Amino acid sequence: MLLARKVFVPSRPWQEALEEFLGALRSSGYLAGLPTEEIDVTQALGRVTAAPVYAAISSPHYPAAAMDGIAVRAETTFGASEQEPLELALDREAVVVDTGDPLPEGFDAVIMVEEVAFQDKTTAIIKRPAVPGQNVRPVGEDITAGEMLVPAGHSLTPYDLGGLLAAGVTRVTVRPRPRVAILPTGTEIVPPNPNPAPGEILESNGTMLAALVSQWGGVPEVYPITPDDYQLLKDRLDRALEEKDLVLINAGSSAGRDDYTARLVEETGHLLTHGVATRPGKPVILGIIRDKPVIGVPGYPVSAALCAELFAKPVLYYRQGIKPPAREQVRAVLGRKIHSPLGREEFVRVRLEREGDRLVATPTSRGAGTIMALARADGIVVVPRLSEGFPAGQEVTVNLLRPLSGR
Amino acid sequence: MLLARKVFVPSRPWQEALEEFLGALRSSGYLAGLPTEEIDVTQALGRVTAAPVYAAISSPHYPAAAMDGIAVRAETTFGASEQEPLELALDREAVVVDTGDPLPEGFDAVIMVEEVAFQDKTTAIIKRPAVPGQNVRPVGEDITAGEMLVPAGHSLTPYDLGGLLAAGVTRVTVRPRPRVAILPTGTEIVPPNPNPAPGEILESNGTMLAALVSQWGGVPEVYPITPDDYQLLKDRLDRALEEKDLVLINAGSSAGRDDYTARLVEETGHLLTHGVATRPGKPVILGIIRDKPVIGVPGYPVSAALCAELFAKPVLYYRQGIKPPAREQVRAVLGRKIHSPLGREEFVRVRLEREGDRLVATPTSRGAGTIMALARADGIVVVPRLSEGFPAGQEVTVNLLRPLSGR
Repeated sequence: MLLARKVFVPSRPWQEALEEFLGALRSSGYLAGLPTEEIDVTQALGRVTAAPVYAAISSPHYPAAAMDGIAVRAETTFGASEQEPLELALDREAVVVDTGDPLPEGFDAVIMVEEVAFQDKTTAIIKRPAVPGQNVRPVGEDITAGEMLVPAGHSLTPYDLGGLLAAGVTRVTVRPRPRVAILPTGTEIVPPNPNPAPGEILESNGTMLAALVSQWGGVPEVYPITPDDYQLLKDRLDRALEEKDLVLINAGSSAGRDDYTARLVEETGHLLTHGVATRPGKPVILGIIRDKPVIGVPGYPVSAALCAELFAKPVLYYRQGIKPPAREQVRAVLGRKIHSPLGREEFVRVRLEREGDRLVATPTSRGAGTIMALARADGIVVVPRLSEGFPAGQEVTVNLLRPLSGR
Repeated sequence: MLLARKVFVPSRPWQEALEEFLGALRSSGYLAGLPTEEIDVTQALGRVTAAPVYAAISSPHYPAAAMDGIAVRAETTFGASEQEPLELALDREAVVVDTGDPLPEGFDAVIMVEEVAFQDKTTAIIKRPAVPGQNVRPVGEDITAGEMLVPAGHSLTPYDLGGLLAAGVTRVTVRPRPRVAILPTGTEIVPPNPNPAPGEILESNGTMLAALVSQWGGVPEVYPITPDDYQLLKDRLDRALEEKDLVLINAGSSAGRDDYTARLVEETGHLLTHGVATRPGKPVILGIIRDKPVIGVPGYPVSAALCAELFAKPVLYYRQGIKPPAREQVRAVLGRKIHSPLGREEFVRVRLEREGDRLVATPTSRGAGTIMALARADGIVVVPRLSEGFPAGQEVTVNLLRPLSGR
């Protein structure tokens, strides 16, 4: 048995693996003819529209006072001046209005309260004429009935929600949030606790992957830990495929003795990729079972985070009908040289510091297991597959892991 | 009564009003000695730590194989070469390990499986010596027991959660999310519907403010619409102050007939500010009742959004023990002149477009009621209080409302 061990030599560029994966998901219908659901606009923050949204009514939907004051017919007021103030009969020639009130029929201007003297309860005095339309919000000033408020494939912001409701739209058709199963696997994996035995590994990737999935618009569920048992894992994967839209199987993705994931995907569905030429993150598995994507994510936490970002993030965004957002980028000067092996695209975590008017990027720990180094990093520098790295002092592009402000 | 109308002339810089507001909230204890709660790390995404978090255990917490292969004592392997391969007795001189397995006592190196030939079930053959420590993750490579993982006042990321769990930390002390009451008020305000009568205004600000509050870490609740009735509003405010940490009263904040908010705050607590010198947004109300902040937000949606950002956002962040994040800024050239009245700080919404290697900022509608213009804007240009605006072609700073990528 030992002699038959499969040796694992990944050389496939991840971009090629991703393209094939997305292409297969498009062909299978998973990324075409996407599902929709109708929800209350009040619940739609961050949700992605499945169709353009049109205004049901104009806003304002009637000519409205834009100021507190008196509504008038402008022509009635022509001739008013400092020298010859004009008296207007209240309720007939002038009507007291608050901001937002409708203008009485035939009235076309509002004089703001600061420019009106009220002589008694029946008379208002003005010293300047009004111009037609003055301090009036015409129908449709903000929104015209029937206009497109937001296009399809738009992620709704707080302001959008306000605009939709102001336009009389109370329900909106959106993409369902993709449901994601996260399956921690491995006999050595135990729930986090402060007293593990040697060889026991605390289950931490599930929570990290779930948090990433939420940030990408999905609804994650971390399943119980599955020990290394082919049938158990098969049963759990079956259930996950029944319940969810995407399955992430964590660990069990290198070629160790207990790694059933690739075999399982191969036997129950279609295994597209096993291993890509990245560092960290190479032993990823991409497969499709019963028309649903299954991703085998490596066990090392930095590899797991990276694989999820490279492969699960685009699937989740495209499944919501939207392009995955690129990370913001900045240019920085390398504080230290980076040496990287030929043949793998390396993702080097860096910290950023401002020195005068330039940013300096310093590589942090490169171990695939050093999750806190990733947590503390400001960004990632990519060393291409056919490069051996960069000298110190070279200007490079940094993909930001967090906002740069203050740095 | 009409003659006694209070005329509303705000000239106070908003920065001064905010400083006084925050200062009073610090003095009253609302922004000092902040509350804490302990929660599961699995639930802590985006939550702000109330104290530094220290590692309970090291990670790895035992010397671990970094590769699938065989664990060896390095000294046993000295002398192995292509010419003179070395045989190692399995289970005695070499032990088969998977990534993550603990090294047997006294073993100090791992030879990766790709460099090992297994002659039979009892013998492994190697052609190169191992170096001590090779392919071994020493104890604490990522995290050392007792080290500080994250400081106090840190907003937890997916990677942080992974790091905390890997360090045996399962519970974390964080700031409670501030609970926010949003009170839509006004007899003219009605629930959104496609057939309002003239004069009826659809309630849309509540949802917009709630969405903003969620983005700033708060837990919003939109209360039922309160008509313009002093006692009703007083009762509802009472209940809101009982139930929540911050109260936003929407509309009723200009000096119209039905505006009870300022009077109510003055009579039941301490009214700090009524009106600031901004455009839009001037008729804001800042008060403290029973040691809790109450903000009267103008009724115009753009004013409401801006006031919430200027005054509610900082209160919510400081209440969570964290500085409010600044918006990302870019420099752009004005595509059109902006004229702005002296004496008010104006927030001009702009769209951004790339022209060659520069960004051009074009002002959009400046009406306080045009929420869709805000929804479609890319950023905001601030015209200072003592400036009358900028000429076309001037380089200005744009505060981004959404990421710039792709523009």
